[in-house]
Amino acid sequence: MRILVLNVNTTESMTAAIGRQASAAAAPGTEIVALTPGFGAESVEGNYESHLAAIAVMETVRAYPEPFDAVIQAGYGEHGREGLQELLDVPVVDITEAAASTAMYLGRSYSVVTTLDRTVPLIEDRLLLAGLSARCASVRASGMAVLELESDPAGAVEAIVGQAELAVRDDRAEVIVLGCGGMAGLTEQVVARTGVPVVDGVAAAVTVAESLVRLGLTTSKVRTYAPARPKAFRNWPPGAAPR
Amino acid sequence: MRILVLNVNTTESMTAAIGRQASAAAAPGTEIVALTPGFGAESVEGNYESHLAAIAVMETVRAYPEPFDAVIQAGYGEHGREGLQELLDVPVVDITEAAASTAMYLGRSYSVVTTLDRTVPLIEDRLLLAGLSARCASVRASGMAVLELESDPAGAVEAIVGQAELAVRDDRAEVIVLGCGGMAGLTEQVVARTGVPVVDGVAAAVTVAESLVRLGLTTSKVRTYAPARPKAFRNWPPGAAPR
Amino acid sequence: MRILVLNVNTTESMTAAIGRQASAAAAPGTEIVALTPGFGAESVEGNYESHLAAIAVMETVRAYPEPFDAVIQAGYGEHGREGLQELLDVPVVDITEAAASTAMYLGRSYSVVTTLDRTVPLIEDRLLLAGLSARCASVRASGMAVLELESDPAGAVEAIVGQAELAVRDDRAEVIVLGCGGMAGLTEQVVARTGVPVVDGVAAAVTVAESLVRLGLTTSKVRTYAPARPKAFRNWPPGAAPR
Amino acid sequence: MRILVLNVNTTESMTAAIGRQASAAAAPGTEIVALTPGFGAESVEGNYESHLAAIAVMETVRAYPEPFDAVIQAGYGEHGREGLQELLDVPVVDITEAAASTAMYLGRSYSVVTTLDRTVPLIEDRLLLAGLSARCASVRASGMAVLELESDPAGAVEAIVGQAELAVRDDRAEVIVLGCGGMAGLTEQVVARTGVPVVDGVAAAVTVAESLVRLGLTTSKVRTYAPARPKAFRNWPPGAAPR
Amino acid sequence: MRILVLNVNTTESMTAAIGRQASAAAAPGTEIVALTPGFGAESVEGNYESHLAAIAVMETVRAYPEPFDAVIQAGYGEHGREGLQELLDVPVVDITEAAASTAMYLGRSYSVVTTLDRTVPLIEDRLLLAGLSARCASVRASGMAVLELESDPAGAVEAIVGQAELAVRDDRAEVIVLGCGGMAGLTEQVVARTGVPVVDGVAAAVTVAESLVRLGLTTSKVRTYAPARPKAFRNWPPGAAPR
Amino acid sequence: MRILVLNVNTTESMTAAIGRQASAAAAPGTEIVALTPGFGAESVEGNYESHLAAIAVMETVRAYPEPFDAVIQAGYGEHGREGLQELLDVPVVDITEAAASTAMYLGRSYSVVTTLDRTVPLIEDRLLLAGLSARCASVRASGMAVLELESDPAGAVEAIVGQAELAVRDDRAEVIVLGCGGMAGLTEQVVARTGVPVVDGVAAAVTVAESLVRLGLTTSKVRTYAPARPKAFRNWPPGAAPR
Repeated sequence: MRILVLNVNTTESMTAAIGRQASAAAAPGTEIVALTPGFGAESVEGNYESHLAAIAVMETVRAYPEPFDAVIQAGYGEHGREGLQELLDVPVVDITEAAASTAMYLGRSYSVVTTLDRTVPLIEDRLLLAGLSARCASVRASGMAVLELESDPAGAVEAIVGQAELAVRDDRAEVIVLGCGGMAGLTEQVVARTGVPVVDGVAAAVTVAESLVRLGLTTSKVRTYAPARPKAFRNWPPGAAPR
Repeated sequence: MRILVLNVNTTESMTAAIGRQASAAAAPGTEIVALTPGFGAESVEGNYESHLAAIAVMETVRAYPEPFDAVIQAGYGEHGREGLQELLDVPVVDITEAAASTAMYLGRSYSVVTTLDRTVPLIEDRLLLAGLSARCASVRASGMAVLELESDPAGAVEAIVGQAELAVRDDRAEVIVLGCGGMAGLTEQVVARTGVPVVDGVAAAVTVAESLVRLGLTTSKVRTYAPARPKAFRNWPPGAAPR
Repeated sequence: MRILVLNVNTTESMTAAIGRQASAAAAPGTEIVALTPGFGAESVEGNYESHLAAIAVMETVRAYPEPFDAVIQAGYGEHGREGLQELLDVPVVDITEAAASTAMYLGRSYSVVTTLDRTVPLIEDRLLLAGLSARCASVRASGMAVLELESDPAGAVEAIVGQAELAVRDDRAEVIVLGCGGMAGLTEQVVARTGVPVVDGVAAAVTVAESLVRLGLTTSKVRTYAPARPKAFRNWPPGAAPR
Repeated sequence: MRILVLNVNTTESMTAAIGRQASAAAAPGTEIVALTPGFGAESVEGNYESHLAAIAVMETVRAYPEPFDAVIQAGYGEHGREGLQELLDVPVVDITEAAASTAMYLGRSYSVVTTLDRTVPLIEDRLLLAGLSARCASVRASGMAVLELESDPAGAVEAIVGQAELAVRDDRAEVIVLGCGGMAGLTEQVVARTGVPVVDGVAAAVTVAESLVRLGLTTSKVRTYAPARPKAFRNWPPGAAPR
Repeated sequence: MRILVLNVNTTESMTAAIGRQASAAAAPGTEIVALTPGFGAESVEGNYESHLAAIAVMETVRAYPEPFDAVIQAGYGEHGREGLQELLDVPVVDITEAAASTAMYLGRSYSVVTTLDRTVPLIEDRLLLAGLSARCASVRASGMAVLELESDPAGAVEAIVGQAELAVRDDRAEVIVLGCGGMAGLTEQVVARTGVPVVDGVAAAVTVAESLVRLGLTTSKVRTYAPARPKAFRNWPPGAAPR
Repeated sequence: MRILVLNVNTTESMTAAIGRQASAAAAPGTEIVALTPGFGAESVEGNYESHLAAIAVMETVRAYPEPFDAVIQAGYGEHGREGLQELLDVPVVDITEAAASTAMYLGRSYSVVTTLDRTVPLIEDRLLLAGLSARCASVRASGMAVLELESDPAGAVEAIVGQAELAVRDDRAEVIVLGCGGMAGLTEQVVARTGVPVVDGVAAAVTVAESLVRLGLTTSKVRTYAPARPKAFRNWPPGAAPR
């Protein structure tokens, strides 16, 4: 089966890293195709960038020329999963949700450790809408920006592990979700320091997508995600004639 | 003061109608500027279209060359209000929320009557995130598409009033919100048939925006709506060189 | 238009201050009539006093001889708004609710800073019943009694600003509501020290009441606020013959 | 022990009936003293009347010259229990809450059948504030006014039993609470027709009050129900000199 | 009337203590029969032990040869109350729930102080399912195991009182529930140190059970607690031939 | 990898059917071992039977002599998953939860169609505790007992499909979960008649368990599911000497 994994920002090196991460989690026979959106921000850390990512991811998937079996949106707290579900029949998995539902199998409550304080509300909103917030102990920010995770790995480890420890001790989290694609390499260190299971959203999403495909399940088309009604668009997509 | 009122679709006649509606509600001295997004769908009735509207509205506001005092996003259940708040210091008002908070002053519970069944979840999600759903008795669909409101006004009245009556009788709504810009002309008929107050979101939003401006209140910039961090964009906005 | 603004306690100087505050926020052409209840406590800081205020405010409004267009109940967390809505067709606005719904337009969450610890539950109850608590980060007490706000202004500033700072830092509030009429003069200092917007309930309520009147909206009379059934009263109002 | 049972309206015959009902439920050695408020409405079926009852009940208890061990407020959905708790150290029990918490021991969910549609919101509000609404399946109105229960007993039975049956069948209630003092005589008929346990609030409240007294428990005085601060009252109580 | 009080562990001395506690709270004429389960753990402090206690308590009640009027399950946070309600027509009272609903009459919020951290989730789950968690400020662990309460009484007092003080100060609890049968002797010391009412679940449950019996109320049999359907069991109860 | 799949009742033919179902969903290389509890009821349709199943499943897993990688508890709404998580380090998956979290990837809301009305509360409780109820539109009973699914397959189809249709139409479910192991064969017919995706819990649980194992994730041991403390048991397990 072929799974498209969509980065939400336009930094190719992060797309490559997400692709490697996804491939490492994939079963034999699963082809991972990591895609960078055709437009957008180099990193997504706020509302405008997230809204732009939503539409960029959708256009990128729509433009993909080959058949595929599932789509993973690999951004933490980004908008747009509902739009993909409307466009597609195949399963769509947001890593924010895959990480949460995976964590819920492992402990009574989980915390998400993310990058900047300003992304906390975005993740909280996604979890609330997804109906996955009842067992979320907290969403904590490490204070490290997405791109700093690469530029200052030692500092990132300390900041992230520190928040994970506080989540376990003060918020009573029993599982930690690393809430940024760029954090995937830190899993072992967080496990070692906190003693609790640590879930990486990209890997979790790959197994969820594979499972849905194997079970022959597709997106429900009766109401919320029914195919869009045919209608005229103006000046969209960029450079296109009106449809 | 000058208030920008943003249509979420690209149908100019609807922009004009929204503008008239807003102007009728405005105080003396308020200038209403109704804007059509530079790109997007002729009507917004689903997730993809709503996500596209979110970013189109933001770009349109960003490109507006004159100063302004507040922005109204005139779409029911559309995405994007948070992005506008991040971009701007001036108050931003979504008509979905203005209608709900206005209705809550008038009765113990309110129902929204909207167009198609598929837009119900979008409105419910907005109200949940806005923290305004506790007193929402129901969101009901009339089954009339946005553009049918103009093409079949008699049918629209019947369908909408019928749902409003059910909302009052079965869902125990005490106030009705007409959940589509195109429904504004029906207010009197719904009042006459149901006996409850009917709130039009555009008019409500104008008074909310004027009030916030008059009180000298602006969007909080401490966390969720802090200004975006400077970063590089690729292929955006359409035709632009990278920023 | 004429708006009655009801103080909930019997301290005339506070009625005067509330009246000035309301007038400062009112639009040209709005006449503010500030009224002191005919009976009750010199300040309202508890349940008994609040219940007494509820009925005193209603009797005072009922006895007002001139026509009016809206009523504002200017007490934080006091009982009685529902009773006014039952008595009247014109809009009724409680400043607790007007402040909250105004704050919700400005940031993702708000905190209320009030006077004594014992009034916190009263405010929390009002917000819960009003369906406005989902985005309330906290209600915090400054420890200053209502009348101390006048007698020790310097101490009051420190106590109130201190709690506002804690609300922003620890409770993640993005907007502050000053939860006592007597605090209105402190707005600028709290803004300066916390960097977040500060909402004064009396001013907010004036704009809400004006908006409702301008939109021609009145209280729904279908169920909760239907006019009272005619019935016999004993020994009420004080000194009256049975009705 | 002596328990004061406070009617909320001024109809002496209803006070007497409530007193008989309470006495029938009381343990040997419990003295029931049924009191009629010194002022107020002949029946309480709305917000104004309920607010008036709240303060009338408090004044009546305050004026009672003898010692007592507990107070029961015998009104469904009335305001004022918090005020009594503030005034008194002895336990205070509202029959709305006693009925609900008793019903919760008997089945997974309960419904309240009350008099008029307009009293439903009052009861729902009390249960929400009391934290007893999670297992409330519904509050249903029989359409019979309080005083009709006496004037048309046959019609009342049919109306009440009919709603109880709907609650069990459609709302999945497993226990019925008769939500009006005047309904106490109907218990057996509702049991016979619905097959579920039926709770009468006055009787339940008597056993709760007795239990609290026997356990030596009193109202917590640390915050919400701390004694009122000393302060000056104007024109209150009626005819009194200022305190 | 005869009330069976079921210890959930197999430590006879604890059964005896629970029996004394229950008898001290019982009204004249109430016979308390304290029973030790026929199998299970010496103390219950986790999920496996709690599930085992659930079934052991049920078998013990089923095997009791004499008639009885009510059953009390005297374990904090243990499973099984629903099963007893299914087996029996007479009232069943879980001390976790009796303590909570009793506490709710005394203050606006309550906290439970229990033994080990690992039992906190068990108690929270019971309160959530029982619909009694809305006013629960916190469940706090003293860190003392059940059997340590007997072996180190002085240490237990300090640990428990310390947590109670934190609950009152930081969690804003107004009532304390001692969440372990073995803590009953500490009530006075906790009252003395915190100044708030302290509820003991066993005593509270006795008065609740007596009240339900006196009111002639029994468990609803319409759905959740309808009698079990007849069916074949294998190897159960231990040593029995198949039924 | 080896996954133990635990039937909750003692009917061997159902164990075999569950085993076949699980094997059909398993990936190559996964060994499914279906186990029948050593004691318990022939079918589980109530609280007593569910509590008994909880402990029987735990003892059966404990007695299994070979190593294994994950455990699936194949009962809808049964107690005991928490106990298994306490006993084991390997992942534990309850089919009630696996079905729900799988369904949540496919549509905005899901309904469960189960057997008898009396099992509805058991399933609702599990979903509430699991934090998976926010998007549950309804749990509906077909009225068919577990064993009737085999004895009257035609009647079962009609009853189950009828409830699924009502769930989609009236409760606005977008996905159906078949809430009983015995219903697995009906998936295609329900899909054909309702047009929405249908999730079978056993199959879903197999893919979840495989995913957790492949990701190297294990149960958190920091608090709720920490290993049981060593302690003495009396008369347990049946026939054993005290441990």
